[in-house]
Amino acid sequence: METVREVDVAIVGAGLAGLVAARDVVAAGATAVVVEARERVGGRVLNEPIGGGEVVEVGGQWIGPTQDRVAALARELEIATFPTHTAGENLLDWGGERRRYSGTIPRINPVVLADVAQAQRRLERMSRRVPLDRPWLARRADAWDAQTTETWLRRNVATGAARELLRLGFQSVWATEPRDVSLLHTLFYVHSAGGSLDMLFDAEGGAQQDRFVGGSQRLPDELAARLGDANVLLGAPVRRIDHGPDGVVVGAERADGERVAVRARRAIVALAPALAGRIVYDPPLPGARDQLTQRTPLGTVAKCMAIYDEPFWRADGLSGEATSDRGLVRLTFDNSPPGGRPGVLLGFVEGQRARELGRMAPDARRAAVVDCFARLFGPRAASPDGYVERLWAEEEFTRGCYGCHLPPGAWTGYGEALRAPIGPLHWAGAEVAEVWSGYMDGAVRSGETAAAAAVAAL
Amino acid sequence: METVREVDVAIVGAGLAGLVAARDVVAAGATAVVVEARERVGGRVLNEPIGGGEVVEVGGQWIGPTQDRVAALARELEIATFPTHTAGENLLDWGGERRRYSGTIPRINPVVLADVAQAQRRLERMSRRVPLDRPWLARRADAWDAQTTETWLRRNVATGAARELLRLGFQSVWATEPRDVSLLHTLFYVHSAGGSLDMLFDAEGGAQQDRFVGGSQRLPDELAARLGDANVLLGAPVRRIDHGPDGVVVGAERADGERVAVRARRAIVALAPALAGRIVYDPPLPGARDQLTQRTPLGTVAKCMAIYDEPFWRADGLSGEATSDRGLVRLTFDNSPPGGRPGVLLGFVEGQRARELGRMAPDARRAAVVDCFARLFGPRAASPDGYVERLWAEEEFTRGCYGCHLPPGAWTGYGEALRAPIGPLHWAGAEVAEVWSGYMDGAVRSGETAAAAAVAAL
Repeated sequence: METVREVDVAIVGAGLAGLVAARDVVAAGATAVVVEARERVGGRVLNEPIGGGEVVEVGGQWIGPTQDRVAALARELEIATFPTHTAGENLLDWGGERRRYSGTIPRINPVVLADVAQAQRRLERMSRRVPLDRPWLARRADAWDAQTTETWLRRNVATGAARELLRLGFQSVWATEPRDVSLLHTLFYVHSAGGSLDMLFDAEGGAQQDRFVGGSQRLPDELAARLGDANVLLGAPVRRIDHGPDGVVVGAERADGERVAVRARRAIVALAPALAGRIVYDPPLPGARDQLTQRTPLGTVAKCMAIYDEPFWRADGLSGEATSDRGLVRLTFDNSPPGGRPGVLLGFVEGQRARELGRMAPDARRAAVVDCFARLFGPRAASPDGYVERLWAEEEFTRGCYGCHLPPGAWTGYGEALRAPIGPLHWAGAEVAEVWSGYMDGAVRSGETAAAAAVAAL
Repeated sequence: METVREVDVAIVGAGLAGLVAARDVVAAGATAVVVEARERVGGRVLNEPIGGGEVVEVGGQWIGPTQDRVAALARELEIATFPTHTAGENLLDWGGERRRYSGTIPRINPVVLADVAQAQRRLERMSRRVPLDRPWLARRADAWDAQTTETWLRRNVATGAARELLRLGFQSVWATEPRDVSLLHTLFYVHSAGGSLDMLFDAEGGAQQDRFVGGSQRLPDELAARLGDANVLLGAPVRRIDHGPDGVVVGAERADGERVAVRARRAIVALAPALAGRIVYDPPLPGARDQLTQRTPLGTVAKCMAIYDEPFWRADGLSGEATSDRGLVRLTFDNSPPGGRPGVLLGFVEGQRARELGRMAPDARRAAVVDCFARLFGPRAASPDGYVERLWAEEEFTRGCYGCHLPPGAWTGYGEALRAPIGPLHWAGAEVAEVWSGYMDGAVRSGETAAAAAVAAL
């Protein structure tokens, strides 16, 4: 049996990018249907209930300064924000020693801090030379895309401790190792976020500054509600896209074998490029586009949260933010709901360590993560009332987080294929954005850009 | 409508690896069916007729010393070999000058030659320290996998000309740029070929030494003939593999919508990892395996041949082998049939230049390639009787050649997932081989290894 729909624009993927694109297509007076593989909307944005009507987010959750498009979306949807909890002292668990410090700069060897600072300044200066629309046209693009970010760190950061701190910061932003990522991509990404690494690293004044009341998934949920159930087809993984001068047919197949076909004049594929490359296209896409999708791997991160009756660390004068050079969890935050009850400790397990975590049994994973919390925040952290985690690499319809990164050679060899439409096919998703690439704000911008192009072509 | 087959081992992909696996499963007294997307067998091994009963190969074609398993296969199938034509002087078109030279070493600046030689020796020495079964266990694996091969060249090769020559050699072996490939992968690959770069570069005494009479596609054709049409299902792209303790169901769908289901106790997926990652698996594969397939891009190469009534360059005392530092074609061979009629000039367009070629119209491609031949071999080369080319990145069921390479971080982060079976699923294909990885010989070895494992598990 087959369900057939006819619209102006078919949209693949009900993440923020796809839903925003649908919103804009409809606002322009055209018709749109969003086809989503999962039984829910939101993609990498997902709430999880923790009882008492409270939720935590196991996907993207933060919003910061200059993220204007996702901020405008929140205003439009009447979703309030509240500041990430940062009051109190942060922890640095380093070289076997646990130190408390205030602000974003730990009290460690000033030589190391100066080394980190000079590296940041240089990376930021270089990043501003990368054109956001065409990174491969940077004057030094060939040299920057010929090396890994790790190679740059080893050559330009003198002290081992500074390299380690920068690796840690890198892992927290890209959820992968600096060795995996082209220096040019790192510079593009920094410029895309405004040209400041502190913007990427920080809570106050940075990309982790604020959170959404009720959880970030309210953004896609409210967008979907406004579109109406009839225009968001859930549980329908898109497997095939036929396209030509007369338009497109987006073909999905439900678990029960029911086929869904959406006929449209244009399509917007709002998936990470690596996943967009797994769809069957007829006619097949040009080699350059297909080979690009072979070069856009997703990062590896597990977002792990322990739940306590209260955020007891606050009484100890701690913010809940900790940085560590050992164990699975190297970075923590206080992720308690706005009211401060229950207390939630959030730990990120990233890159190589996330892959180790992925090989462990659920009980062992929880035990290992809670051990880290206890080492950092004391015995009370050892016995949480609840535990929530998400290993995004295991998710069939995500296959990694936070997003895609480009390895050396990809931007200079294939960059043009990232955003260029192919006939009636447009590309959206956080990776396609020029500004705040890889963030919820970038997802919103990419959806707005793709919708404008698709509508203009109708 | 659905066709259902039941066998012991279902094999996905009728390239050399899949067909050899099927041969061995059947030889062990079990039953096998090979499911192939194309209407032909051979994968990246493909003949093209050029009239008069002669053929040229637009895919893999050579066999060299120590490639014992493909040699044994050829003997078994009674397919003879003949030496690649190398008589005469080679050409070096370098720095605007065209020089003739004998043997494999051009008469250029001895400082440059010494620089190339020291780099080769060092790479070869390092390569022997990479364990073929587990490259990530090399003592220096972390450092070698944290940098691109280009980074190593820039650091360890003093003269620009030597770097350029090594890049050219690299492109001719990997069909990609040294910037795209992890140094650890390059070292693994060299060791996999015996630890000698000359083995990879050379005709006589190297991987390009001999050719197959009647064309290399006779190997898969004869294998398929022995299996019988009923056991090789053509035109059936595999889209889905359901797997569990009770076995597997391999699901394909033909262009006319007919569904094909092969029920088996084990399956061997004999595709390049990047393509294996595009199949839908139920249950979904572990994150480590899926993320590996996001990190195995295929190279980019166009194999272009001009056909002349005779190999006129031979009369000029030329071998037909040329190396150039400009134009689309940087490497040529005499690819005439054993009898020497017609004359065939083979030009490789690789890496970045293959992507440029991919953006050109067919006529412009032919003109650009023939121009290169004319510059190298004189006016007679300007007007061929025929022209044959293959752009493998454009092929829906190949998506690149010669094979997959691993970018930095992939071997150390995901290497274990390349070969490890998952339940009843085994992996084959040239990329999986420990010896002659990426070559026809490696494909044969991988098929033999996977078949032995699958049969042992029946």
